[in-house]
Amino acid sequence: MLDVLSYVGVGVFAVSGAISAGRKRLDLIAVLLVAMVTALGGGTLRDLVLDVRPILWVEDNTYIWVALVAATATMVWQRRVSRIEPALVYADAAGLALFSVLATQRALLAGASDVVAVLMGIVTSIVGGILRDVLCGDPPLVMRGEVYATCALLGSIVFLGLRHIGAPVEAGLLIGAGAALVLRILAIELRLRIPLFHWHDDPRRRR
Amino acid sequence: MLDVLSYVGVGVFAVSGAISAGRKRLDLIAVLLVAMVTALGGGTLRDLVLDVRPILWVEDNTYIWVALVAATATMVWQRRVSRIEPALVYADAAGLALFSVLATQRALLAGASDVVAVLMGIVTSIVGGILRDVLCGDPPLVMRGEVYATCALLGSIVFLGLRHIGAPVEAGLLIGAGAALVLRILAIELRLRIPLFHWHDDPRRRR
Amino acid sequence: MLDVLSYVGVGVFAVSGAISAGRKRLDLIAVLLVAMVTALGGGTLRDLVLDVRPILWVEDNTYIWVALVAATATMVWQRRVSRIEPALVYADAAGLALFSVLATQRALLAGASDVVAVLMGIVTSIVGGILRDVLCGDPPLVMRGEVYATCALLGSIVFLGLRHIGAPVEAGLLIGAGAALVLRILAIELRLRIPLFHWHDDPRRRR
Repeated sequence: MLDVLSYVGVGVFAVSGAISAGRKRLDLIAVLLVAMVTALGGGTLRDLVLDVRPILWVEDNTYIWVALVAATATMVWQRRVSRIEPALVYADAAGLALFSVLATQRALLAGASDVVAVLMGIVTSIVGGILRDVLCGDPPLVMRGEVYATCALLGSIVFLGLRHIGAPVEAGLLIGAGAALVLRILAIELRLRIPLFHWHDDPRRRR
Repeated sequence: MLDVLSYVGVGVFAVSGAISAGRKRLDLIAVLLVAMVTALGGGTLRDLVLDVRPILWVEDNTYIWVALVAATATMVWQRRVSRIEPALVYADAAGLALFSVLATQRALLAGASDVVAVLMGIVTSIVGGILRDVLCGDPPLVMRGEVYATCALLGSIVFLGLRHIGAPVEAGLLIGAGAALVLRILAIELRLRIPLFHWHDDPRRRR
Repeated sequence: MLDVLSYVGVGVFAVSGAISAGRKRLDLIAVLLVAMVTALGGGTLRDLVLDVRPILWVEDNTYIWVALVAATATMVWQRRVSRIEPALVYADAAGLALFSVLATQRALLAGASDVVAVLMGIVTSIVGGILRDVLCGDPPLVMRGEVYATCALLGSIVFLGLRHIGAPVEAGLLIGAGAALVLRILAIELRLRIPLFHWHDDPRRRR
């Protein structure tokens, strides 16, 4: 079941990559590449940093195929995907929520400490999107004051807390992902913004 | 012989990195860095993802020296390099073709599946150029609708197909690289463009 | 003692990341992320390339906490940090100097050749700043003709030379870092610029 949800997350991120690339009028191959980087980039960095080998999608090629199929479907059925695009925001929220807890668990299994596990939960959820935006020349979404990385942080911490008080893994994953999902949906619906930090340069500053 | 061709590929990519950096009026050290990232970035990512250790250029420092010498020569003999720059497009095509089949073979030797091997063939050929363009603030070349990544895809698939029908490695490498090279040269000569995918935003879209 | 200096370097880079992010009016979480990437990105790439496992900050979480605390402090005490910002340029110079020799030593301990060790000294010192600038959409500092990467190069080479003539590690680290620091401070004070390399495009050029 978790595998299926994980594939769904990868597929959703691939669709978001294909849409971003399409907005820049990229060619078909570039669209596929951006979609794959968006979908698989976070997990790649996570497994590299944790030294979990082989990397998830090298071991289980289903992830590659899911990303390819999702990106191709986005191009072929553009009109239909476009019609359900508002729904994609929620699917992306589900992917974010799921990635945050699954990556945290994977990090714990690899022997990482709590703080590293939480970091991996965040990194896995957002790095794909950052790479997508850098490749497409967009300002990174996580850098635009939306409540996004914070949801991954919440999901990861809730999961970790539940594990520490002895909750079973499945319960921790579901409740953690649920918390992240609810926060993300609230953020979308209520247009929550994270307070911005603005550095005021001193005019006498040297550099 | 393959080693020599591989060095040539690295040298050519280093020259292209030095030229890109020079167009941005970067300083000498930055030019060397951009050249090395362009030449060695793809192989680095390939070996990291496949867990092939040590990384090619860590094991065989000749790659580093080739990149350094090529970048230095580009700066010292700018006028001469400039005069043969049209030829460099074909040298770059040769590097692309060679990297795609060599990386595919290296991935197969590391035990990767076919789809991962093809991905590595593409990634190794284009990541250096993507990093070069990101560092120099240019829109990534592979994102501009030119037939480029597709050539690596072709070379990698031809090599893989020949291996599957029992062709010897050398024949596979030569024919695969040849196919990639021919497609790339045709693309340059005939100004082939890959069809663009354009995502039309629905005006009622939420995000 | 070296550990403490290393933490100082991480903290200083985290502050510079937080300031860069703050200049772009990023949200609080994004500021923390940029600060951590700036502080830990170079070491991450170094350990990945050298296959030193676990990665430094995965093994010693103090590095994570130092970066988090430094970034948080930058936001909380913005006014005070702002007042000492001119001093931060020198602290950053100290971090650069220290990272270059420590990374070179770490590479040698991992069995790397001299040229790879020097490369790692440079990469570790500058990659964090490059990632910071890419994430914030700034042109990379090392690409602006300032004498920066050259200082890391000097520190790394001096350390290596001293090791080769039999000097003890501590002496090599101190003198190497000192050389890098002096060059960086001279560069700041005298506004030294590295000669730029300017590639003149031939108007008849094809691409």
